Amino acid sequence: MKKIKVSNNVIRRMPRYLRKLDELDAQGISRISSSELGNLLGLTPSQIRQDFSCFGEFGQQGYGYNVSALKEEIAKILGTDRGYNAVLVGVGNIGRALMDNFCFSDWGCNLISAFDVDKDIIGREINGVPIRSMDDFSGFLAENRVDLAVLAVPKEYALSVTDVLTENGIKAIWNFTNVDIAGPESPLIVENLHFSDSLLSLSYYISERNDENAARAARLERQKAAKDKK
Amino acid sequence: MKKIKVSNNVIRRMPRYLRKLDELDAQGISRISSSELGNLLGLTPSQIRQDFSCFGEFGQQGYGYNVSALKEEIAKILGTDRGYNAVLVGVGNIGRALMDNFCFSDWGCNLISAFDVDKDIIGREINGVPIRSMDDFSGFLAENRVDLAVLAVPKEYALSVTDVLTENGIKAIWNFTNVDIAGPESPLIVENLHFSDSLLSLSYYISERNDENAARAARLERQKAAKDKK
Repeated sequence: MKKIKVSNNVIRRMPRYLRKLDELDAQGISRISSSELGNLLGLTPSQIRQDFSCFGEFGQQGYGYNVSALKEEIAKILGTDRGYNAVLVGVGNIGRALMDNFCFSDWGCNLISAFDVDKDIIGREINGVPIRSMDDFSGFLAENRVDLAVLAVPKEYALSVTDVLTENGIKAIWNFTNVDIAGPESPLIVENLHFSDSLLSLSYYISERNDENAARAARLERQKAAKDKK
Repeated sequence: MKKIKVSNNVIRRMPRYLRKLDELDAQGISRISSSELGNLLGLTPSQIRQDFSCFGEFGQQGYGYNVSALKEEIAKILGTDRGYNAVLVGVGNIGRALMDNFCFSDWGCNLISAFDVDKDIIGREINGVPIRSMDDFSGFLAENRVDLAVLAVPKEYALSVTDVLTENGIKAIWNFTNVDIAGPESPLIVENLHFSDSLLSLSYYISERNDENAARAARLERQKAAKDKK
């Protein structure tokens, strides 16, 4: 595997490739060209070839890509074979939704424990994952290898829990709190799931389309008026 | 407002600007330069000026930006003043988390109804939003202006519910199902919240850092060995 610094945009596309290849593999498709793959993903073949070239040579001129081999390669690039251990902090709705429905192990990640302050759920298990008390949090982090933390606490606890994680040597956070928990200079690796950013982007695209439609309608109206005048 | 087609990367940064400006406004900061704003967001001042220039001229040479005016402008660009109506389909964990904790109206969006098949929750309200039966779904869509749908149903229903939405003229979907519900040629506007893509990106960055650290350690080891030999 080549060792160059790969751009964020390329990294962001890799999981999409992986999902699509997974799907193709499940459909029994064993081979695909970069143009077919491009069509499925709305990308140009050259874009796809360029993305993959950041990591080495996977395709073969005139043959295309072996679907399952490419899938394995991309999974490896994304680190799914490294068996990262995760803890989840905050078993509210979002935390519970993740524990109930999100299959961490599908993505090479072991969710080894959850933590909460609610006495009613401490000691229980969801999908085989124990919920422990926040009182035992630091101790657990000291005694177990934890590669990343899923932060799903209420907004007002986001920063203080981040401090505890940092003090205990956790270097990567999957952040569901909608709070910016680390400045640009922070050594933490933070992956934010900002729901609001996503909704606002959608809102922009709806507005853009509405404006285009309104402009088109106005244009047609003007043309019609000009025609009627003649 | 200028009407040019703005790149996706610029659109994706606008919500981040809005969040930061909101924060600054709440702190009573009324004026900020592009370099200060850049420092806070890890962007260069020229990047920021370029992003804003896609939509018109907001700053003033030597003065910087008026925080609250810029905030209003960006909110408008993102369509938060348009009062979009949303429905939510699927009141499972994710759907419930959104209804409980995500303040749609903060982002200019009215969540007017939720839909589910579970008789135990049909007829109830969460945060003032009624949960209706899926039996009434098409009828509701026909009788109400709905600008977007929040899709939070189990994976296996993602495509069939998307069909119902499309048949009823819904053109924008906020998709939490982790299923690709529209091909690149689809006229639907789809905003995906793929949790797995986000986790995989995090996994990549952790792996990248681990590899860098391992390479550094190996280099130091070699240097030490070479020194010991002398």
